[in-house]
Amino acid sequence: MLTTLNALDAPNIVIAPSSHRTSASPFTLVLADILESDRIFAETLANYRSPVAPMVQHLRHYRGKRLRPALVFLCAKACGGVVPAHHVLAAAVEMIHTATLVHDDVLDEADTRRHNSTFNAEWGNKVSILFGDMLFTHAFHLTSTIDGRACQLIGAATNQVCAGELLQTRERGNWHLTEDQYYEMVDGKTAALTELATRLGALYAGATLEVAENLATYGRSLGIAFQIADDLLDLTGEEAKAGKTLGTDLEQQKMTLPLIHALNTLPTEEAAEFRKLLKNPAANKRAEVTDTLISSGSLQYAKRRAEEHARTARNCLDCLPRSESRTILEQLTEWSIRREK
Amino acid sequence: MLTTLNALDAPNIVIAPSSHRTSASPFTLVLADILESDRIFAETLANYRSPVAPMVQHLRHYRGKRLRPALVFLCAKACGGVVPAHHVLAAAVEMIHTATLVHDDVLDEADTRRHNSTFNAEWGNKVSILFGDMLFTHAFHLTSTIDGRACQLIGAATNQVCAGELLQTRERGNWHLTEDQYYEMVDGKTAALTELATRLGALYAGATLEVAENLATYGRSLGIAFQIADDLLDLTGEEAKAGKTLGTDLEQQKMTLPLIHALNTLPTEEAAEFRKLLKNPAANKRAEVTDTLISSGSLQYAKRRAEEHARTARNCLDCLPRSESRTILEQLTEWSIRREK
Repeated sequence: MLTTLNALDAPNIVIAPSSHRTSASPFTLVLADILESDRIFAETLANYRSPVAPMVQHLRHYRGKRLRPALVFLCAKACGGVVPAHHVLAAAVEMIHTATLVHDDVLDEADTRRHNSTFNAEWGNKVSILFGDMLFTHAFHLTSTIDGRACQLIGAATNQVCAGELLQTRERGNWHLTEDQYYEMVDGKTAALTELATRLGALYAGATLEVAENLATYGRSLGIAFQIADDLLDLTGEEAKAGKTLGTDLEQQKMTLPLIHALNTLPTEEAAEFRKLLKNPAANKRAEVTDTLISSGSLQYAKRRAEEHARTARNCLDCLPRSESRTILEQLTEWSIRREK
Repeated sequence: MLTTLNALDAPNIVIAPSSHRTSASPFTLVLADILESDRIFAETLANYRSPVAPMVQHLRHYRGKRLRPALVFLCAKACGGVVPAHHVLAAAVEMIHTATLVHDDVLDEADTRRHNSTFNAEWGNKVSILFGDMLFTHAFHLTSTIDGRACQLIGAATNQVCAGELLQTRERGNWHLTEDQYYEMVDGKTAALTELATRLGALYAGATLEVAENLATYGRSLGIAFQIADDLLDLTGEEAKAGKTLGTDLEQQKMTLPLIHALNTLPTEEAAEFRKLLKNPAANKRAEVTDTLISSGSLQYAKRRAEEHARTARNCLDCLPRSESRTILEQLTEWSIRREK
């Protein structure tokens, strides 16, 4: 049930003319590898019987673009080639990502994800907490079948992920958060895992430490660009296209880059008014907030920051020889800031 | 703050006369090792600043008997001696145990643990979920500094822990649970970690696989005995002595061994009445439930089962040469079924 990749989920990017394809998923090149890591993911959890088996089945609704596995494989290909360890590591990284999504939905009290009911909507918070824990531990156990280095890298990145999420939750409603603190959070909650994916891809393909470091920076910058774009999507996107509940950042009083910019640049009185609006627990304030963010130039500011990080990511690829994988990695930097879901 | 071991927390057992101590904590023999693993535990989390640092501090209220670290060291000593890897592994096992306690308190909506407020009472459920996650990932990262084998053993045991907890939560209020299903849960939620501790102690001291397997069975049987005793404590213990909210199993509609026995042995009509009582969400039913469990012989039955598992554990120690550590491991099998907290 977990082994089908819905091509519609993958970002739709025009591939370079040389590839003789005018429009396709950028992940087509690594589709077979993604399916193999999907298989390992499913196999790892295949032995559970009732009442856990239906939960494992429900995971198919949590599988999206496979961005992280794709990053592992694209970097591996760009650095020398995919080996079996990559499939296991990609499955482990995706499992950690999925664990965080399951816990995120509990934290956000979200009821919809990818057009389907969330775990917590289906089984309640308690089961969701424990099922998320189980995904974390299975990811670590899976990693341990590779080697100690992989365990160290995945352990360190996951520490960062949890600390970032914790910081974000703890700082909800802190309208005095600085841009530096925001980046500390984003590093943890998003960029740590994309950095991990690209680093693992390079290292296990035998790349030099210098190239691996460049690709790690690529992954981190891409993750930051992606997260800022996600902040913007939550404010200005369309739920039907996004396939998830939007406006949850506002509802959960999470600080995002456009809000930080507005609070720092609006005249004192307007900033106070805006803070009052943000604090107001009433729903349907999204349009009103967005209006302010447009007039203060904050949406534009966040968009420019995302573009800068995307550019940094792109520059990191200069160390690689030209290849179809490199072209796709380049295009992903564009996609990270133009997505609608 | 985490490096002081409260001797009062450790079980109070009469040590064999040969040791020239008539009454002491059985963990005195490994106290220096426990303090070293406490130090590693604290050091692992020492770099967090506000707002995470106060949460790390609060962990001191979650540190109890250090049963699992003590098992690592006692088994190590009984098999050849403690090496530095044991201190790291003991800290990792204790960290996993602590992570499950933090999440357990969220699941149980408990507000007191060891005479202090729980994590969730102090910081709310959301922060507690993420802080628990962070403890899991730090435990895995810490383990990865040892070797791949340790990661595999700790990963596999933690999979079992989470599956056991999940099963228990999912089966709350299932008054038709069988004794076999109960043991499946207990294996996961308690025995997997004590088995892990004793296995790691033996293996990293250079024990043969046969001895390590015997000590693993010792750890598992001890864990089961301990859990059944915990079930009984929740029903018949005194809160003041136990230092935690009791009766939560009943309140949370968790199935325990005495209840399973009663429901299977009471005459149909009385069993139906008893089921009705268990389903009733009203508080203060503990005394009434206990009365039934006494008259049906179910408390006695559970006590006998606990004694059997304690005996199995004790027999597993026959493979070891006589030593002070072995004597203490033997005494722990007695303590596991006679404790009041």
